[in-house]
Amino acid sequence: MTLPETPQTSPDREAAAAELDLDPKDWVALRAQAHRMLDDMLTHLQTIGEQPIWQAMPHEALERLEEPLPADPQGLERAYADYLRLIQPYTVFNKHPRFWGWVIGTGTVDGMLAGMLSAGLNLNAGGHNLGGTYAELRALEWCKQLFGFPPSASAVLVTGGSVANLVALTVARDAALGTAAEQGLQASGIRLAFYGSTETHNSVPKSLRMIGLGAAGWRPIRVDVDFRLDLQALTDQITRDRVEGIRPACVVANAGTVNTGAIDDLVGLVEICKRERLWLHVDGAFGAIAALSPSLRDLVKGMEQADSLAFDLHKWLHIPYDAGCVLVRDADAHRAPFLQSGSYLTRMDQGPAAMPVLFSDYAPELSRSFRGLKVWMAFKTHGTAIYGRLAEQNVAQARYLAGLITAEPELELLAPVPLNIVCFRYRGHGAAGPDRLNELNRRLLIRIQTEGIAVPSHTMLDGQFAIRVAITNHRSRRADFKALVEAVLLLGRAAETE
Amino acid sequence: MTLPETPQTSPDREAAAAELDLDPKDWVALRAQAHRMLDDMLTHLQTIGEQPIWQAMPHEALERLEEPLPADPQGLERAYADYLRLIQPYTVFNKHPRFWGWVIGTGTVDGMLAGMLSAGLNLNAGGHNLGGTYAELRALEWCKQLFGFPPSASAVLVTGGSVANLVALTVARDAALGTAAEQGLQASGIRLAFYGSTETHNSVPKSLRMIGLGAAGWRPIRVDVDFRLDLQALTDQITRDRVEGIRPACVVANAGTVNTGAIDDLVGLVEICKRERLWLHVDGAFGAIAALSPSLRDLVKGMEQADSLAFDLHKWLHIPYDAGCVLVRDADAHRAPFLQSGSYLTRMDQGPAAMPVLFSDYAPELSRSFRGLKVWMAFKTHGTAIYGRLAEQNVAQARYLAGLITAEPELELLAPVPLNIVCFRYRGHGAAGPDRLNELNRRLLIRIQTEGIAVPSHTMLDGQFAIRVAITNHRSRRADFKALVEAVLLLGRAAETE
Repeated sequence: MTLPETPQTSPDREAAAAELDLDPKDWVALRAQAHRMLDDMLTHLQTIGEQPIWQAMPHEALERLEEPLPADPQGLERAYADYLRLIQPYTVFNKHPRFWGWVIGTGTVDGMLAGMLSAGLNLNAGGHNLGGTYAELRALEWCKQLFGFPPSASAVLVTGGSVANLVALTVARDAALGTAAEQGLQASGIRLAFYGSTETHNSVPKSLRMIGLGAAGWRPIRVDVDFRLDLQALTDQITRDRVEGIRPACVVANAGTVNTGAIDDLVGLVEICKRERLWLHVDGAFGAIAALSPSLRDLVKGMEQADSLAFDLHKWLHIPYDAGCVLVRDADAHRAPFLQSGSYLTRMDQGPAAMPVLFSDYAPELSRSFRGLKVWMAFKTHGTAIYGRLAEQNVAQARYLAGLITAEPELELLAPVPLNIVCFRYRGHGAAGPDRLNELNRRLLIRIQTEGIAVPSHTMLDGQFAIRVAITNHRSRRADFKALVEAVLLLGRAAETE
Repeated sequence: MTLPETPQTSPDREAAAAELDLDPKDWVALRAQAHRMLDDMLTHLQTIGEQPIWQAMPHEALERLEEPLPADPQGLERAYADYLRLIQPYTVFNKHPRFWGWVIGTGTVDGMLAGMLSAGLNLNAGGHNLGGTYAELRALEWCKQLFGFPPSASAVLVTGGSVANLVALTVARDAALGTAAEQGLQASGIRLAFYGSTETHNSVPKSLRMIGLGAAGWRPIRVDVDFRLDLQALTDQITRDRVEGIRPACVVANAGTVNTGAIDDLVGLVEICKRERLWLHVDGAFGAIAALSPSLRDLVKGMEQADSLAFDLHKWLHIPYDAGCVLVRDADAHRAPFLQSGSYLTRMDQGPAAMPVLFSDYAPELSRSFRGLKVWMAFKTHGTAIYGRLAEQNVAQARYLAGLITAEPELELLAPVPLNIVCFRYRGHGAAGPDRLNELNRRLLIRIQTEGIAVPSHTMLDGQFAIRVAITNHRSRRADFKALVEAVLLLGRAAETE
């Protein structure tokens, strides 16, 4: 059969010359520009440790960014020049060897290249019968395997731990509602309760608010001296709720709290949830990665028996933002809240619409970026074993730092160091009262950050302002932590006499 | 003051030589590899129209992708070789000039480069006092301006229209619940109703299920012959609900339905929502872009008066996946469901934690990829005016295609063409019954796709299988649509005699 020619060779192509597109008019010039951009980025990454980890945006740069709507084209060269001047120098931050703020991954050079490929392919990774879909499905199988979930479990990539928690808690809610789930909370008349420690990440109460359970559905349970969920307090609360006609639905366990890296008694929680028939969700945003290390694995024992697990790939696995994942043991339960029909989405038996999966059956998103590519490439490039060794290295660095702190009488460790987070403060010679100490450490932290020495972050522990060093950084070396301690001592002494 | 040296020059650095990282061991080789990858990608994009728009994954490639967990490193070169062989050839799809399936953007070459920069910077764009945050804020101001929202409105970038709808409906729910929102739906005892046409995108009932309202909270309202929400049926339903003690909360209006591109009577809906004191949310996933064109703007008149608007940047603006946006007129209402405290998130008055914004106050995500960069760069590179002209071009192409179809007695237009979507079928000489016609067109569509002629998608309209051409493609030319019509006629005639 003779089929119509492609438009490239069609005479209509010329007649349509007036039609516009967004492609380069001069491919030679574009290629040269693109290679300059790549070269600049490689140099940026190769020299990252020599650049200021943080510097304030100069007034001029802030003003320049207040640009009115660019209705007319400026061209790639000018846009890129503005990027180089106004953005790049002020974003070294989490790529620097001395970044230990919040819990943020470092990224990699090959991750940058995977991001280039992904943006170039521009795949809407919804599940079409395309190479990208099969690669993403494979990456998900690898994730299940890494965390000891069975092949029958479901998995989906989302933007990060917050959405991973949101997905898991939605599934847990609907599993508890049973057949009443479809008509919603208002129609059900059922009152559910979700449990977790007071150290639980804010995305959990936030998710509960989103899914309609609100503060009335959340039971923050007290922690012990190690910031771990108190199991007795939990079971007492479950009993009280049952007496009041409330249906206990789900326990959220922490594998690595954001404040101190505390890991709840997961084995104990598995047992309680089995006995009480509750959904066990583990928030393992970063801590779950301990499962990849033979020497740390026992810390998160029990996690593999959870009903659902949320973890990030952009934190301790250093895959570029964004990439989080949620695993659910019961794939049918996972799909229940998200399955929606649409005649424009029905599958065909052949062609691109013969979809091996519809990822929107597992998460809020329908259109999706091709997150699977960077995961697939990173695992293949580096091998998954190295992530366990890097986690061990960071945990060893945390212990090294804790050791340096304990050895200095002017410093004070404010929490146990079970994993990769160290909370401490400068206490000087013990003369300052609590408010003065909090203020002193607040000022001290700002100086450490603004002078470009390092970027730890902060938190409050029992009313005490803590300098918080969360180590998810493959570029850090022991010397970096030693330098931090020296700077804190120098600046702390200076601040004390101010 | 003498500060500790950076670790690059510290003697400790050598002692720590045993410490690992994920950086290249040979930067010269890495640079060469990276430039090859960029060159390959540029060639891929430059020749996209000459490649098969879709081809089935060969059995060998599928098998090769079934790779066991790569515990050991394979290196970037091998991972990339596998990508080139197993993924890239099978993902041309939506970048091709003849792709008109679902509603998917085409992407751009500069978007690929922005993706490279973004993955290289690896910014967790949560709102820290960094260059990236200010660029993203600026891009959001531009978005508000493009759609006629006031400077006091709020805006946030999310993964796409589904999450943009989810955010807006959560805000609308809590605005309707008022002070009862904090304690959640179960405690409130309030029953809410949300309204929208039967043509509303599936992400709306899906979002309602997620936020706890379920099917009981959704009122699909019938459409007229132009697939637009019937205003009388809407007001009748609102009245019935009030009588039954249900609280009408929100109307979801379509600016471009996914099936046919129908645009609801937005001015009429603004009036009804004002009178009935309901939240008006507009789902403008792609149709909202009409506002950027002087000649199409009137089609979406009224949209600028909505309480919230969801639209995509990865569809008709061709920014790489993923990028969607939600605008909310009342910024306080926007924040209400998402604000959550955490002592590790408190702002400082100086340094990186002197955050100009905390984007997580506006959406489910805390960790976020730096979507603002690709928006900021695209708007500057191309200027925003061109997007209006490209939308006009696609709408003109849709009309051109509709004209070709109407001129052929063997073809049949199945819906009006108000915007950029054309639904039609091959009917031959009118002898086939409805089931036979549906089956014939289903087979026909699969042949068009699998023979690599073009990729339209499909939908069902009043029980009729429609070949659906949704034109959000800056690379398409009139000749491409002529070629489609010729192929449908050729293949349709052949299929009829099979």
